[in-house]
Amino acid sequence: MILTKSSQDLYGEYTARMQKIADVKFSAAVLQWDQETYLPPKGAEFRARQLATLSEIAHEWFTAPEFGQLLEELHSRQQLPENQQRNVALSLEDYNKQKKFTPAFVRRLSEAGSRCFHTWLQARSANSFALYRADLQNMVQLKKEEAGLAGYEHHPYNALLDQYEKGATVSLLDKVFNEVRQPLKDLLTRIAGCPLVNDDFLRGDYPKQQQWDFGMGLIRQMGFDFEAGRQDLSEHPFTTNFNSLDVRITTRVDEHDFNSMTWSCIHETGHGLYEQGLPADYYGLPLGEYASLSIHESQSRLWENNIGRSSNWWKTLYPRLQSIFPKQLNTVSAAQFYQAINKVQPSLIRTEADEVSYHFHVMIRYELEKKLIEGSLSVDEIPAWWNEHYAAWLGVTVPDDKRGCLQDVHWSHGSFGYFPTYSLGSFYAAQFFAAAQNQVPGLNDSIGAGDTQSLLNWLRENIHRWGRRYTSEELCLKATGKTLEIKYFLDYLLDKYDNIYKF
Amino acid sequence: MILTKSSQDLYGEYTARMQKIADVKFSAAVLQWDQETYLPPKGAEFRARQLATLSEIAHEWFTAPEFGQLLEELHSRQQLPENQQRNVALSLEDYNKQKKFTPAFVRRLSEAGSRCFHTWLQARSANSFALYRADLQNMVQLKKEEAGLAGYEHHPYNALLDQYEKGATVSLLDKVFNEVRQPLKDLLTRIAGCPLVNDDFLRGDYPKQQQWDFGMGLIRQMGFDFEAGRQDLSEHPFTTNFNSLDVRITTRVDEHDFNSMTWSCIHETGHGLYEQGLPADYYGLPLGEYASLSIHESQSRLWENNIGRSSNWWKTLYPRLQSIFPKQLNTVSAAQFYQAINKVQPSLIRTEADEVSYHFHVMIRYELEKKLIEGSLSVDEIPAWWNEHYAAWLGVTVPDDKRGCLQDVHWSHGSFGYFPTYSLGSFYAAQFFAAAQNQVPGLNDSIGAGDTQSLLNWLRENIHRWGRRYTSEELCLKATGKTLEIKYFLDYLLDKYDNIYKF
Repeated sequence: MILTKSSQDLYGEYTARMQKIADVKFSAAVLQWDQETYLPPKGAEFRARQLATLSEIAHEWFTAPEFGQLLEELHSRQQLPENQQRNVALSLEDYNKQKKFTPAFVRRLSEAGSRCFHTWLQARSANSFALYRADLQNMVQLKKEEAGLAGYEHHPYNALLDQYEKGATVSLLDKVFNEVRQPLKDLLTRIAGCPLVNDDFLRGDYPKQQQWDFGMGLIRQMGFDFEAGRQDLSEHPFTTNFNSLDVRITTRVDEHDFNSMTWSCIHETGHGLYEQGLPADYYGLPLGEYASLSIHESQSRLWENNIGRSSNWWKTLYPRLQSIFPKQLNTVSAAQFYQAINKVQPSLIRTEADEVSYHFHVMIRYELEKKLIEGSLSVDEIPAWWNEHYAAWLGVTVPDDKRGCLQDVHWSHGSFGYFPTYSLGSFYAAQFFAAAQNQVPGLNDSIGAGDTQSLLNWLRENIHRWGRRYTSEELCLKATGKTLEIKYFLDYLLDKYDNIYKF
Repeated sequence: MILTKSSQDLYGEYTARMQKIADVKFSAAVLQWDQETYLPPKGAEFRARQLATLSEIAHEWFTAPEFGQLLEELHSRQQLPENQQRNVALSLEDYNKQKKFTPAFVRRLSEAGSRCFHTWLQARSANSFALYRADLQNMVQLKKEEAGLAGYEHHPYNALLDQYEKGATVSLLDKVFNEVRQPLKDLLTRIAGCPLVNDDFLRGDYPKQQQWDFGMGLIRQMGFDFEAGRQDLSEHPFTTNFNSLDVRITTRVDEHDFNSMTWSCIHETGHGLYEQGLPADYYGLPLGEYASLSIHESQSRLWENNIGRSSNWWKTLYPRLQSIFPKQLNTVSAAQFYQAINKVQPSLIRTEADEVSYHFHVMIRYELEKKLIEGSLSVDEIPAWWNEHYAAWLGVTVPDDKRGCLQDVHWSHGSFGYFPTYSLGSFYAAQFFAAAQNQVPGLNDSIGAGDTQSLLNWLRENIHRWGRRYTSEELCLKATGKTLEIKYFLDYLLDKYDNIYKF
């Protein structure tokens, strides 16, 4: 019967189904957002099964054989407009990946994730890896099963990497990380030879409400639309969306640390601006989705580092900050402030790391995940392995698991293979920002005047509006004229720290 | 095949399905809660379709013919334990009601409700009934269709009333309201002949944060478990739950009106305590649900009025309140405060009405809804009819629709037939409280000492733990030894105001 229908009728059926699946997925996103912001502790158990049921429905609908037939048939038709063809091709690709997992497996994964998340919260607060061990072990086991079901070549971790970054493999990432490791190591060594930057004033007394208000001002200034989104507090800052007209970001505020709120706030706003820039008229369809996680991260990193940690942006911003916190900052010059927010010092917490040592945090997790998934390291061995590598690669001593292997939420959600996209994001960010600077006349002057609208316009035009139409590399080529080159990132960093430290 | 299965296997299938349906329904409740607390305005459109999709799934699963067969078969078996029999009987009853509505109709209703809610918010804020008219008209039309699909005897409004209060009919409610109308009218008249109570001090300057903190203290003192629930702000206070371990209440705070936050806070906590007292081990099953809306309202009203507006409860509470708001209340005696919080004066807003005139607000809505549903009044005629009846029944002039027919959220959700349960709730509350006073030794002394735990225990034991096992009237008989008698309510009111006004 399918064969007798017009392509447009079939495409209409495809759209309707995808959008209903999106309704269910985005409903789950609301429940997850609530779970991390407002859920009372006793609500966790039933919330887990509610999330599992929604995952199961979305998965069942998407992987139903008759939907596969519809996708196959639509894919074979030549008459569809290009954007429709692209949607169908991407959905078919997703279908072929997803159908490998049974609804029961998806449910197990979802339930394990909710349970593991709550155990993680408890373990972190109790500073006890032992509390977390069993649930994490279960999760690792499920991820190994998942890799087996998904199928892979060469390395089981490839199956997981591909879910977060299409085409990413152990051999590609090994190559990229090998390319940056030594130059970053050298840079760290050179900086270690310089006098230590003083940033004590950033850890003075910064009242919560004033920080929150300052953060909200930054978000607004960056162009986040509060009619189509909001910011709340959560343990671990994140961005989610229930459609591009309802984008939620979260932050945390530490009254003795100006950095904690500020950078997470700018970072998540970068993600949020991307989500708000995705085309709402493709609700539920691939072209309405983000390109990839590394591209997503390029947006947050670009705002956090290339803008947020630039002396240029703070030109107009710093006097405002001083007027909000006069007691804390009146004796601190703009130059001192700039050095402080760019202080490089290997430390324990990834999300608070400087731009140089950050990538060692990622590389440690990447190596560790590879071993966990290939089975050459057991969950029990994580803390020791972690601490050993922090000592060897970053020269820091991990005093406890809370500030060690319990610091990230990712594993509790089953996100193995996710961390590498953070580094890729930084690399893309540097290349994108260089292109924007080339292409937008007067961009640096505008940013120096506190106006980032023309940058946002460039991102909207070259990245956001395309949704998932292009792969990371296609998008990079289209926006910058070249596929990813690590040199942009290294040049940016070397240039920046040369200026700060006058090697 | 169903015939060869054991009753316990079938009951297991029934439970599993009901709990998955509950997952979807409670997910929708999270989305609704979010819609009324945190949703950014542009998110409303897609939220509407997300809610519609969830309603549709829950409805489809529940009304699937094979589930009906399962229910019929289980219902016919004699070997089930009594609590399981009761669950099945109630589900079958629900099934027979629900299957009359197609999934498409349920979807239309859900979408219309979301749209109408957002129009209502706009119309209310713009003080323009004209903005609301078309969407409300559409909703009334849908409710008429619904009454037709559900079927009824004598009056189409009966079909809608029955959804909120099983067995409620126009003739029963006419009788109840006729019984209270004249005594309440007489009481109003007598009070109108007394000197007007001064309550100006309740509308002084009550800073928001202090009110919020005071409210949170009250909620805690009443026994609400914040590990299994929370309070947030919303335009229109409400209670919802995502299971009995995650109960959400909301309030509003007006810094120039002590009443606004306080009574809604106590009222919603009454609802919330009921939800938290429902048995969590019946998640998704009728015995885990509330008995009826009038019983739900009896819980909120009992706390709001029989406790919250009693001189006894404020004995220990008032000095604490004075210490929080010394500037506002130090010159006000406990007796003056008690008179003020019980001031009777017909006014415009139902949720702020005193205990006597309140029921005229309900009766006006009841009469109006009857007319709308039977078609003897058009949506266009609502404002004029409303204003005319407020003048005639309460002697007040409605200055604008915001303080008139736009004040309630209910119609926008399609809740026609809901208001009468508010009055029934007050009537049950008085009878329950009289029974508790009879049955619990020293109850009044405890309450006077600020300790309501023994009252909560009585409610848990006699009302909450039964879930939906009994009808309103069965529950009332079981808890008080009699079915509903309006005399308890009238005695309570007459006694109270006799004491205050010394007629």
